[in-house]
Amino acid sequence: MKEIRLAARPTGWPTAAHFEVAETEVPTPRDGQVLIRNLFMSVDPYMRGRMNDTKSYVAPFEVGAPLDGGAIGEVVASNAEGIAVGAVVVHGYGWREYAAVDAARVRVVDPTAAPTLSAYLGVLGMTGLTAYVGLLDIAQFREGDTVFVSGAAGAVGSAVGQIARLRGAKRVIGSAGSAAKARHLTDDLGFDAAFNYRDAPVRDQLHAAAPDGVDVYFDNVGGDHLEAAIGALTTYGRVALCGAIAQYNDAAPPAAPRNLALAIGKELNLRGFIVANHNHRMPEFVAEVGGWLRSGQLSARETVVDGLANAPEAFLGLLRGENTGKMIVRLCGSEQ
Amino acid sequence: MKEIRLAARPTGWPTAAHFEVAETEVPTPRDGQVLIRNLFMSVDPYMRGRMNDTKSYVAPFEVGAPLDGGAIGEVVASNAEGIAVGAVVVHGYGWREYAAVDAARVRVVDPTAAPTLSAYLGVLGMTGLTAYVGLLDIAQFREGDTVFVSGAAGAVGSAVGQIARLRGAKRVIGSAGSAAKARHLTDDLGFDAAFNYRDAPVRDQLHAAAPDGVDVYFDNVGGDHLEAAIGALTTYGRVALCGAIAQYNDAAPPAAPRNLALAIGKELNLRGFIVANHNHRMPEFVAEVGGWLRSGQLSARETVVDGLANAPEAFLGLLRGENTGKMIVRLCGSEQ
Repeated sequence: MKEIRLAARPTGWPTAAHFEVAETEVPTPRDGQVLIRNLFMSVDPYMRGRMNDTKSYVAPFEVGAPLDGGAIGEVVASNAEGIAVGAVVVHGYGWREYAAVDAARVRVVDPTAAPTLSAYLGVLGMTGLTAYVGLLDIAQFREGDTVFVSGAAGAVGSAVGQIARLRGAKRVIGSAGSAAKARHLTDDLGFDAAFNYRDAPVRDQLHAAAPDGVDVYFDNVGGDHLEAAIGALTTYGRVALCGAIAQYNDAAPPAAPRNLALAIGKELNLRGFIVANHNHRMPEFVAEVGGWLRSGQLSARETVVDGLANAPEAFLGLLRGENTGKMIVRLCGSEQ
Repeated sequence: MKEIRLAARPTGWPTAAHFEVAETEVPTPRDGQVLIRNLFMSVDPYMRGRMNDTKSYVAPFEVGAPLDGGAIGEVVASNAEGIAVGAVVVHGYGWREYAAVDAARVRVVDPTAAPTLSAYLGVLGMTGLTAYVGLLDIAQFREGDTVFVSGAAGAVGSAVGQIARLRGAKRVIGSAGSAAKARHLTDDLGFDAAFNYRDAPVRDQLHAAAPDGVDVYFDNVGGDHLEAAIGALTTYGRVALCGAIAQYNDAAPPAAPRNLALAIGKELNLRGFIVANHNHRMPEFVAEVGGWLRSGQLSARETVVDGLANAPEAFLGLLRGENTGKMIVRLCGSEQ
């Protein structure tokens, strides 16, 4: 079998040279384990942080060892009671063709309940839960709020904007990295306004899109987006700090919001979160967002890359913003 | 009578030339008004912002008009029902010897219930309420928390640290601008540790004082203090953004916390506030802090400057950090 290992730690932007495709033995499931053939795996921005050797909320990847992350696959051998061969499971051992995993660390899903299997890694998985928790619990979204989300054509951002719309936002504004993505937001996803942040300063474009200000900002980007949002937030405005992809590859300290002191007079609330601490919201999330998906009120585009060997390139493309919606790697693709 | 007017708007640090001592007529109280002879007035850091012509949560001072702000005085004439001559009242028309004020905009206080009349402008007034609300409501202080407060020898900061101690903090750490102030914090106010921020980088001194991190940071300063605190905060740490005195006189955009993205992984909550929106907490605050004051468990030093004509210098000294505790101007002082 093949697996992708971390070849070296990057400084600044990673390249293909920081990854290595290796051949290894298909593992044998021990007692209480299942052997999974991976069908799809997720690449996510937070993985960039794990390439550094810095203490964080998840352990760093180890040089010479396989990477890991969200994946969905089929059980092909089982030494675990209650999980049969043929079951489809979500788990945390992507970046490899086969994985032997403790039964307690897999979640059996119904393959017929989602539009695609890969949806369990995206809009019905951690990605969608991130949007749901960040908007509703962290930013305390309320009906009638005007919402701004950055990275809005990405997997999390596109879910945030649609959930806000479906929950009764007054106005939903998104930023993205191309004119085509901005059009996708307004034409396909029902955003009220969207702009390409490369066209002009974020502050100016946000002001034009939300002249009365914004009540909630969902931050996937950091940097000048966060600064512009702080300027545009209304009194008692709320920020969910979810990601800062604009600065993940900065070797120097990033630009910071120079206007943070505005948070005093406006009584702003800025709150960071990581979805792993909010798994208790999974049932409500699946019920509500799953319903919208089935009824067609919410849609989730995917950018699918074929073949495990192309996973590093998919990840690098994600960091460059080449995806629309969830970036997914299909392991049962053309290479096999 | 004398009053202090804004002579010109400063860029950067204000000087005496931005103020003017003017002579004017003692006003005549209209129907429903009282005439007050001011006894003490408050100078506060937020007044620096009002010298700029920028939209904020309080209107800017007008060039050529008298400044205003918290004051306490004696009613010397009354056209208002229920407020007798001789009553002592707190109100918002400082920076002048006499003021005619609507009865609805004064608060009658019991002059025997506080250690000094000026306490109604400080530890038992808006200053103390700022500390109380910021620590308990905004930063959601809980017994057992380790608390860090900057500007800790100032009026708000010294109250924050003592309230935290009396409410059961595990450890209270303060920063101040001189060795004498730092000693005052540990020797007189019961802080567990204190440092002079001019001695070495805040980050290093904070780490030495709180090797296990801090759970709550009360920010009066902004800048490198806020950045150091973000680095030291534990998971689910909370920040009350109260002031940013380090940057009030900056003509250029201020330094911002370059590590704000740490708020994501640590699930930090940063929340700004202005006390004027939290007056509903006044009764609980007066009961609790007043009790500690009477029992001697909490103390409040004042730096008193005599004479209205010296009020500008008192304010400039406050911005330079020359006060310990509340900076107060006594109007019935040596000049009269």
